[in-house]
Amino acid sequence: MFSATILTLYPEMFPGPLGISLSGDALARGLWSLETENIRDHGIGRHKNVDDTPAGGGVGMVLRCDVLAAALDAAVPADDPRPKLLMTPRGKPLTQGRVRELAAGPGVVIVCGRFEGVDERVIEGRGLEEISIGDYVLSGGEMAAMVVLDACVRIIPGVMGKEASGHDESFETNLLEYPQYTRPREWEGRGLPDVLLSGNHALIEKWRREEAERITRERRPDLLIR
Amino acid sequence: MFSATILTLYPEMFPGPLGISLSGDALARGLWSLETENIRDHGIGRHKNVDDTPAGGGVGMVLRCDVLAAALDAAVPADDPRPKLLMTPRGKPLTQGRVRELAAGPGVVIVCGRFEGVDERVIEGRGLEEISIGDYVLSGGEMAAMVVLDACVRIIPGVMGKEASGHDESFETNLLEYPQYTRPREWEGRGLPDVLLSGNHALIEKWRREEAERITRERRPDLLIR
Repeated sequence: MFSATILTLYPEMFPGPLGISLSGDALARGLWSLETENIRDHGIGRHKNVDDTPAGGGVGMVLRCDVLAAALDAAVPADDPRPKLLMTPRGKPLTQGRVRELAAGPGVVIVCGRFEGVDERVIEGRGLEEISIGDYVLSGGEMAAMVVLDACVRIIPGVMGKEASGHDESFETNLLEYPQYTRPREWEGRGLPDVLLSGNHALIEKWRREEAERITRERRPDLLIR
Repeated sequence: MFSATILTLYPEMFPGPLGISLSGDALARGLWSLETENIRDHGIGRHKNVDDTPAGGGVGMVLRCDVLAAALDAAVPADDPRPKLLMTPRGKPLTQGRVRELAAGPGVVIVCGRFEGVDERVIEGRGLEEISIGDYVLSGGEMAAMVVLDACVRIIPGVMGKEASGHDESFETNLLEYPQYTRPREWEGRGLPDVLLSGNHALIEKWRREEAERITRERRPDLLIR
C-alpha cells in the first residue's frame, strides 16, 4: 500500500484537503495511508528551537540539520525503501513521469521546508531528493506536499473508476488537452464545432489531435521539443 | 485589500491549510479575504447536475458552460476588476512574476476544474485565464488554487516581517538559492564551508553567487537562457 509520512511544523494542516473528495475517499477506504511527524517535537532545549541564523550571515532562519535528522530518524526506519523528498523551489521540477514512478512504489516521505531553507548537510546526510512543484515561492512545503500526494493518489490502482483512469494522457503524449464541449448545444450564441456533431469518429479523433497540437504549439512549444 | 473568490465543488476544502500559519494569520488579521461559491448550487434540475458527457464522445465528464457561467455571474459582478483564473494543466505555467502581478492587484477569482475539463465556451465567454501550476495532473483545481493563494498572500505588504520580505529573490535573479548552513558547527562529521566562517562578507557574497550559478547550471539550465 502507498504510505506517506510528512515531516512538518504544521501537522494540523494534514490531511486537510487530502481528506476530502477523491483522495479522502481513498484514504477512508485504506488505499493509502498518511502520517505526520512534527519537526518541533525534535527541537532543541526548553523552547524546542528548530532553526537558527544562516552561517556567514544573511536574512531569515535556516532549519537545523540535527533537528531535522532527529525527526527523520524517529519517523522513518533506516531501511525504509521510500524515497525521501524535500519540497523546495531549488528542486527538480515535478513531472507526471515522476508522479507515476512514485505512485507505483511503496510511498513517500516528504519533508516540508520552511524559513530560508534547510541546512545543506542534512540534505546530503539523509539523501533527500529536492523537488519543486513550480517556479514560484510558497510560505512552506506543506501545500507542495499535498500536490505531490494528490497527484500520486489519484493514479493508485482502485482510486479512480477504470473509465477515468484510462485517460491520464495529458503529459504522456507531450500534448495539452484538446478543447472539450458538452450540452447544451447552443449557449449565449455559441454552438459546438460541427465535427463533434458529425458522428464520424475518425474525423473527430483527427480534429482533436490537431487541436491538441495547435494548443501545445501556441502555449507550450517547450513540450514539443522535449 | 486582496480578495479571493473560489468557485469549487468542494467549498469545504477552504480555507483548509490557508487558514493556518502565515496565510491563516494574515486572514485572521484581515490582510486578505476568502470566499467560496459552490458550483453545485447552480446545477441543473432536481439532482443539481453540473457535468455531462463530452460532445463527440470520449471518456469522463465535462463541466457545463451554463452551470459554471451561472456560478460566476452569481459570485462575481460584471465589472469586477479581478482576473478570473481557471486552474488546469493546459494553462500557462504559473511564475513568480505572475504571482507578483496578482499580489499587487485587487485579488483573484479562481475556478477549480474537475472531471475531464470545462466546456470551452465558458472559458471564452467569461474570459477565463487558464493557469497551470506544473506539468502533472491533480484530481481537481482546489490544491492548485491554494498554491496560487499561498504564493500571493505571503508577499502582500504586511504579511511577512520586513526582514523576510526583502528576500524574495529565488526567481528574481533567475538563479536557484545557494546552499544554507546554520548551527551546529559540526554535525555527523560534516563541517561548514570555510568561507562562511571567514567573516569576509565580500568573499561570502562571491561564494554564494557562484554556488547559486553552479546549482542553477546543474539543475535548471533552462532558467539561465530565459
